Amino acid sequence: MMKSSDHSSINVAESSGVEKGKGSLIATSREQKKGFKKGLGILDFLLRLGAIISTIAAAATMGTSDETLPFFSQFFQFEASYDDLPTLMFFVIAMALVGAYLVLSLPFSLVTIVRPHAVAPRLLLFILDTVVLTLATAAGAAAAAIVYLAQNGNPNTNWLSICDQFGDFCQGVSGAVVASFFTVVVLMSLILLSAFALKKH
Amino acid sequence: MMKSSDHSSINVAESSGVEKGKGSLIATSREQKKGFKKGLGILDFLLRLGAIISTIAAAATMGTSDETLPFFSQFFQFEASYDDLPTLMFFVIAMALVGAYLVLSLPFSLVTIVRPHAVAPRLLLFILDTVVLTLATAAGAAAAAIVYLAQNGNPNTNWLSICDQFGDFCQGVSGAVVASFFTVVVLMSLILLSAFALKKH
Repeated sequence: MMKSSDHSSINVAESSGVEKGKGSLIATSREQKKGFKKGLGILDFLLRLGAIISTIAAAATMGTSDETLPFFSQFFQFEASYDDLPTLMFFVIAMALVGAYLVLSLPFSLVTIVRPHAVAPRLLLFILDTVVLTLATAAGAAAAAIVYLAQNGNPNTNWLSICDQFGDFCQGVSGAVVASFFTVVVLMSLILLSAFALKKH
Repeated sequence: MMKSSDHSSINVAESSGVEKGKGSLIATSREQKKGFKKGLGILDFLLRLGAIISTIAAAATMGTSDETLPFFSQFFQFEASYDDLPTLMFFVIAMALVGAYLVLSLPFSLVTIVRPHAVAPRLLLFILDTVVLTLATAAGAAAAAIVYLAQNGNPNTNWLSICDQFGDFCQGVSGAVVASFFTVVVLMSLILLSAFALKKH
């Protein structure tokens, strides 16, 4: 990978090469495109930072949402935690994976800022973003289905609401689901942005 | 929109225009690119047909999956249907929307075959595909979470499995979820394919 200190010299080298090869009109148009693509790269980087924050918030909120009721008998202690429900465990694991991917994708996003015409890193980010969007959406939607059930219950199947007893737990879990939906929206923007960056090549 | 009967004449007109403007080498390269893009367009069309079939299968399987137990008392009749669970109703509605979108997208896909260099229809399809992928993934994952619960129950929250009583219902619902995941995979392929088609422009 390239450090940002090398950046200005490469810019000069590339643009002088272009001006030698073709006319100055083409070079100007290319410079403008480069600026546009660099802007897209910076937006991409900022959106990734936002997605990282919301993903970590989702995973952390879900992971720490447990509630122990203040009364207990000799045999039972009434406690609700995310690991009581396999779907919520999947949510935490998926969000941790999405967060790890987003952190690892930051260097590649930086490469697209430094080298605006490089197609390979953009394409790599695009493909992985699509996969990660699906993972985040699946985790968020599955957790939302369970949270809905925990809050409303379902009389037809005799599944009773647990949020009457575990209000704080339900509130934490709902917050995590909302944060995951924010991540999904940001990932969708990233994918659309990548498509525009790839198109203008 | 253009009919396929106009197709050959447009091809000739475009390629002769290119050959007048630039050298024959560039024209050949452009023709090759056109063939590649046309191939991508045809693959896009076929994938859409596959996605339509799996989406309709998912919606229909879920929509018709109800089971009435052969015994009933004076007051209760034991019946399970998709509209007992809001998440499964969401699944049917979402899958119907995805299916309708995919059918409506077929003409646009045909346009990308007839006019391989047209960017606008590809970009439109790409953006809507991304939105629809998220919708299909959310519906499939939410239904999967509920099906898992129906089959395994959850002792921590006292939600009992209903698949012991309603085996056929559960089987139909599981099949619908599998079909929806097939749709998700096809939509992901469509998005990646669109990115390649946009990139090579």
